[in-house]
Amino acid sequence: MTTKAIAIIAGVGPGTGAAVARRFSKSYPVVLLARSPENYESLAQEINSSGGKAIGISTDVSSEESVKNAFAAIKKEYGDAPAAAAIFNASGKFVRKGILEQTVEEFHVGHEVSVKGAFIFSQNALPLLLKHVESKDAQYPPTLIFTGATASVKANALMSSFASAKFALRALSTSIAKEFAPKGVHVAHAVIDGVIDIPRTQEWLKDMPPEAKIGAEDIAEAYWNLHTQSKRCFTNEIDIRPMLEKW
Amino acid sequence: MTTKAIAIIAGVGPGTGAAVARRFSKSYPVVLLARSPENYESLAQEINSSGGKAIGISTDVSSEESVKNAFAAIKKEYGDAPAAAAIFNASGKFVRKGILEQTVEEFHVGHEVSVKGAFIFSQNALPLLLKHVESKDAQYPPTLIFTGATASVKANALMSSFASAKFALRALSTSIAKEFAPKGVHVAHAVIDGVIDIPRTQEWLKDMPPEAKIGAEDIAEAYWNLHTQSKRCFTNEIDIRPMLEKW
Amino acid sequence: MTTKAIAIIAGVGPGTGAAVARRFSKSYPVVLLARSPENYESLAQEINSSGGKAIGISTDVSSEESVKNAFAAIKKEYGDAPAAAAIFNASGKFVRKGILEQTVEEFHVGHEVSVKGAFIFSQNALPLLLKHVESKDAQYPPTLIFTGATASVKANALMSSFASAKFALRALSTSIAKEFAPKGVHVAHAVIDGVIDIPRTQEWLKDMPPEAKIGAEDIAEAYWNLHTQSKRCFTNEIDIRPMLEKW
Amino acid sequence: MTTKAIAIIAGVGPGTGAAVARRFSKSYPVVLLARSPENYESLAQEINSSGGKAIGISTDVSSEESVKNAFAAIKKEYGDAPAAAAIFNASGKFVRKGILEQTVEEFHVGHEVSVKGAFIFSQNALPLLLKHVESKDAQYPPTLIFTGATASVKANALMSSFASAKFALRALSTSIAKEFAPKGVHVAHAVIDGVIDIPRTQEWLKDMPPEAKIGAEDIAEAYWNLHTQSKRCFTNEIDIRPMLEKW
Repeated sequence: MTTKAIAIIAGVGPGTGAAVARRFSKSYPVVLLARSPENYESLAQEINSSGGKAIGISTDVSSEESVKNAFAAIKKEYGDAPAAAAIFNASGKFVRKGILEQTVEEFHVGHEVSVKGAFIFSQNALPLLLKHVESKDAQYPPTLIFTGATASVKANALMSSFASAKFALRALSTSIAKEFAPKGVHVAHAVIDGVIDIPRTQEWLKDMPPEAKIGAEDIAEAYWNLHTQSKRCFTNEIDIRPMLEKW
Repeated sequence: MTTKAIAIIAGVGPGTGAAVARRFSKSYPVVLLARSPENYESLAQEINSSGGKAIGISTDVSSEESVKNAFAAIKKEYGDAPAAAAIFNASGKFVRKGILEQTVEEFHVGHEVSVKGAFIFSQNALPLLLKHVESKDAQYPPTLIFTGATASVKANALMSSFASAKFALRALSTSIAKEFAPKGVHVAHAVIDGVIDIPRTQEWLKDMPPEAKIGAEDIAEAYWNLHTQSKRCFTNEIDIRPMLEKW
Repeated sequence: MTTKAIAIIAGVGPGTGAAVARRFSKSYPVVLLARSPENYESLAQEINSSGGKAIGISTDVSSEESVKNAFAAIKKEYGDAPAAAAIFNASGKFVRKGILEQTVEEFHVGHEVSVKGAFIFSQNALPLLLKHVESKDAQYPPTLIFTGATASVKANALMSSFASAKFALRALSTSIAKEFAPKGVHVAHAVIDGVIDIPRTQEWLKDMPPEAKIGAEDIAEAYWNLHTQSKRCFTNEIDIRPMLEKW
Repeated sequence: MTTKAIAIIAGVGPGTGAAVARRFSKSYPVVLLARSPENYESLAQEINSSGGKAIGISTDVSSEESVKNAFAAIKKEYGDAPAAAAIFNASGKFVRKGILEQTVEEFHVGHEVSVKGAFIFSQNALPLLLKHVESKDAQYPPTLIFTGATASVKANALMSSFASAKFALRALSTSIAKEFAPKGVHVAHAVIDGVIDIPRTQEWLKDMPPEAKIGAEDIAEAYWNLHTQSKRCFTNEIDIRPMLEKW
């Protein structure tokens, strides 16, 4: 029984996650993790019917039990397959409110997914990534990528909740990168600085040309390029913005 | 009845918190918040017996209820007194472990104090600080200071838990600074980059001269200097290290 | 007469510059700029004899006249060809000395190449890059890339000369990126954080495995990947380090 | 003959430099360096007639010879006096222009003062600062402070000239700080992020309240506070902005 390396994408929705899944499915069977099946069902179908292989698993990344169940399901499906790539693209819910206008719950709930969830996902994915280091079939070093945002490096007024979670995620990414690079795992963080062109943002910036938004498929290509870097050239952080972004 | 402005220090232990309390007690009645009375009792006594005024309140800053109770106790003691300063010096418990060696609980528990706790404390202290803006007796703009660490700007291997919390705290500080500066509140974040000379660190660096460690009373002086800055000169971040620190 | 887009590489030596030239020569006629012909002659020959096209021009990038002459020579050879890419890989000479041990000349001479030279090169290359924006044959947005170093973001003791020049170069890169992105030019800065594996560094880290050094050809691949990014996904900064780098 | 420690301020004009000189003259005889006597004459007179002591010396900090002459004049006046503080507040001339609109001279001329000049000044001041380390009369560690700007950490479009020089200056400051801290010299860099309220900026922001600008005398106070820090508490960087600054 062959154990072809897989790619695992956490946080598959109609935007970046789906685009990343499509891109990585050209080379690897993919696992789609999302809270709700409606987020991955049609995508899995699309990939499976176009020559790739995909399975979706309902997962709450903020719950250790849920993530453990997901990885048990992965094992059931793919056996001892190593992971060539693991992408953490999940995000909690955040409010845009002043300190005195938000509840403690509103401030902190997003951290459960974006920080604790990122940790839980990493903890479960890393053993599969390490397995890929040993694999003779490995074409590229195993890669763990975290999706960040403008708020990963810039904390604006009214953004305390989102920015604190994204700053934390960036620190987590760097700490993992330093710990696991010597073991052969490539960890990268992407600062996505701009509006991604997805159904939800269709009405935003609509008087502007297409170069005012980031293409989700272009992010996916950038992630793929990170993945193909050699052991002698690890990029641990990139920023991404559309041509017309002010920064 | 006069309502002399007070200073509130969260996270009073034998080090920075105590030194800050002593320094600010020269000008303001101080409120000492710590989880356990043994952390503030002798300090309160010391301040009260040397001409200052201090009360201690057992508080778990990670609990909204506990912090609300503390501020109710402050109100009971000091009435409608504004706060001239609020210092967040509390820190959660953190492990120095690899990603695969720590539990989810170990990773996340410190965030409850250092991030959520900082938010809760800020949310309760800001109304008192805003009241000081209006106060005719205010000598200096009200000041909210957060104690950071090397890990606030540098995420090393094995430090994922501490660094992610400290990065998050720094983002929170900046976001609050930007929101409340136009309202007259001065918010600052201090990156304490080195070993503080406190009882717990007595054995550390003990073959080195005293300039290898940071003086807790010197941090307190730096915080006081931040507090005395005018509205036309807010410093929002400082770093602090001892003369002999490598960085 | 066709005016096929060209790529111009400043600072071609036996390392990164040569590797970048080889990589870009697969798609574009390349121009090799170096102070001394011995730095480009054999490389130009190699590229020309293996199906690519290359010309070398002796250029001192710190001299406006010299750079203007180089671009006149480019025009003579390639006519009105736009530039698809321009890579600034030149570096001045720097000393590793304390402030009191170096001369003013030693401190400042490297800035002539690394800062002023980068400006002069950009000023001459940008009109050709802008021409590529208009070009119907353009496959990718025109790209201007600057090679940075660890010292671009970290100023250590004894490194005042190199770090100040590299910090300056990074600022220049960002300023150009912000000015020219809306005009369609993609500008990127690469923080090369580690020892590049070139003849000159052969003896360094020689007890370490190959993953302790950065592959020059891997940097070239990363630059190529930056070049192929779409207008909806510009990366303006990447870091690059080998798997075994401590950071 | 006593050799009372002096303070040397480079870049004395009607704003920050003058305010710093006034502040430090309360404790030390001061030396005022400026290119033109009109920049220091009335200030020296003012300080001398109000109980302090000041001398002015015409100096072009970008010229090694000129700076050497200035320090020879200092020696003539103050003998072997150590320097308790040296403040580099000089700035070159910069244009706000696009890359293609400025000349090479316009781009680079400001670097001569702001980068090379800062180096030359440091090289000449450091021996006097080191002498203060040994001095039994030293009340505070000798302090070398560099005045930075928003552009020290943010490189905007059209600001290539200023930002590259200010980034370079910041790197220089950090490198000196790391080299000389173990020798007892405290080096700090101040990111002045906002409009300073000086005669030249009188018309700027004039519909805004006074808190929209930075008070030059408040910067001076912040510099003084940096100077008074102990060896166990060196701050190497502060930011400064007025209450109403957007950032």
